[in-house]
Amino acid sequence: MSEKEEAPRAAAARRTGRRPGGADTRGAVLEAARAEFGARGYDKASMRGIARVAGVDAALLHHYFGTKERLFLAALDFPIEPAAVVPLITSGDPEQMGERLVRFLLTIWGQPEILDRLLAVLRTAVGSEEIAALLRDFMVRELVTRLAAELDLEHPELRAELVLSQILGLAVARYVIRAEPIASATEEELVPLLAPTFQRYLAGPVG
Amino acid sequence: MSEKEEAPRAAAARRTGRRPGGADTRGAVLEAARAEFGARGYDKASMRGIARVAGVDAALLHHYFGTKERLFLAALDFPIEPAAVVPLITSGDPEQMGERLVRFLLTIWGQPEILDRLLAVLRTAVGSEEIAALLRDFMVRELVTRLAAELDLEHPELRAELVLSQILGLAVARYVIRAEPIASATEEELVPLLAPTFQRYLAGPVG
Repeated sequence: MSEKEEAPRAAAARRTGRRPGGADTRGAVLEAARAEFGARGYDKASMRGIARVAGVDAALLHHYFGTKERLFLAALDFPIEPAAVVPLITSGDPEQMGERLVRFLLTIWGQPEILDRLLAVLRTAVGSEEIAALLRDFMVRELVTRLAAELDLEHPELRAELVLSQILGLAVARYVIRAEPIASATEEELVPLLAPTFQRYLAGPVG
Repeated sequence: MSEKEEAPRAAAARRTGRRPGGADTRGAVLEAARAEFGARGYDKASMRGIARVAGVDAALLHHYFGTKERLFLAALDFPIEPAAVVPLITSGDPEQMGERLVRFLLTIWGQPEILDRLLAVLRTAVGSEEIAALLRDFMVRELVTRLAAELDLEHPELRAELVLSQILGLAVARYVIRAEPIASATEEELVPLLAPTFQRYLAGPVG
């Protein structure tokens, strides 16, 4: 958006209480989209609702992002880079991979803005076959293949996906179903029970 | 419904191709509801769509089940009785609990009509906080507490919920995200990797 367009929009924003279409607006829109997708899931969240939360015109949202799906993908940008996670797990003491992974997960999930983003992704994937396929392709390409390449064992992709399955199940039980005591269990309670699971998937014997 | 009402409805059904409101209809409606909730999730499935699939009037559906939520709960009736699953895991060789559980899961998930019902429950729970809370209470009461009572270890409820978390995560990875190779992995590939996880949650040492 040029400076020329910006001025009248800004003036309009002052009159209506809505934001103009600048860089701050993009951030506000993505933040609103994450909050709405996280709270409502992909299907129930609406461009109109996101625009309202962001304090912008719905027309502006359509102009900049096109469809709800494209807005979702923009909002999605994974809060963690798979390329950065893999070495975090696989470097260091190989006996401690499982423990490092559990502590890393609980640390990132402990940050509400990251957790909201991840739960939005999860809800959307479970509710939409298209998004599930999109995310599957993304996760296999960015996480499973990279992690499997580091595992010098039989069935490395299956092992990487079992790691993913326990991560997903833990997130569902703790943050979606919110069963107690798993929802409130501390890191020190969870590490000794979960770390050996990840350790065995990543580096342990079969059977 | 009395025989008196049945006759004109049956005649109407012959004219319109719709079923009357008898016992077969209830079965057809519940089957349609499970298929629709499974395919679309709780929010997108509609009474109208379920009525169409079942071949009955939407008005009849409302008359017999009231709301979509009540129809869901009727359709939900868990395909497996938790009360029957717990002894299935805990009786027999205690060293084989994990393996029995994996084989049991893969056997029931291998039956499409059961899998559809379970995926409908999962989609609904992930998409709706109310249903998630409902299912949490049901699962904690019927499964976690019963299973924990059989575990003579520290943190029995947390262990039971870790079992549940790996079950949920496996279902999501294999049947929702459908990542390969986990989606097509055979029982003989999965048992040696997964059984020790369940075995340790159920009976193994911490750390």
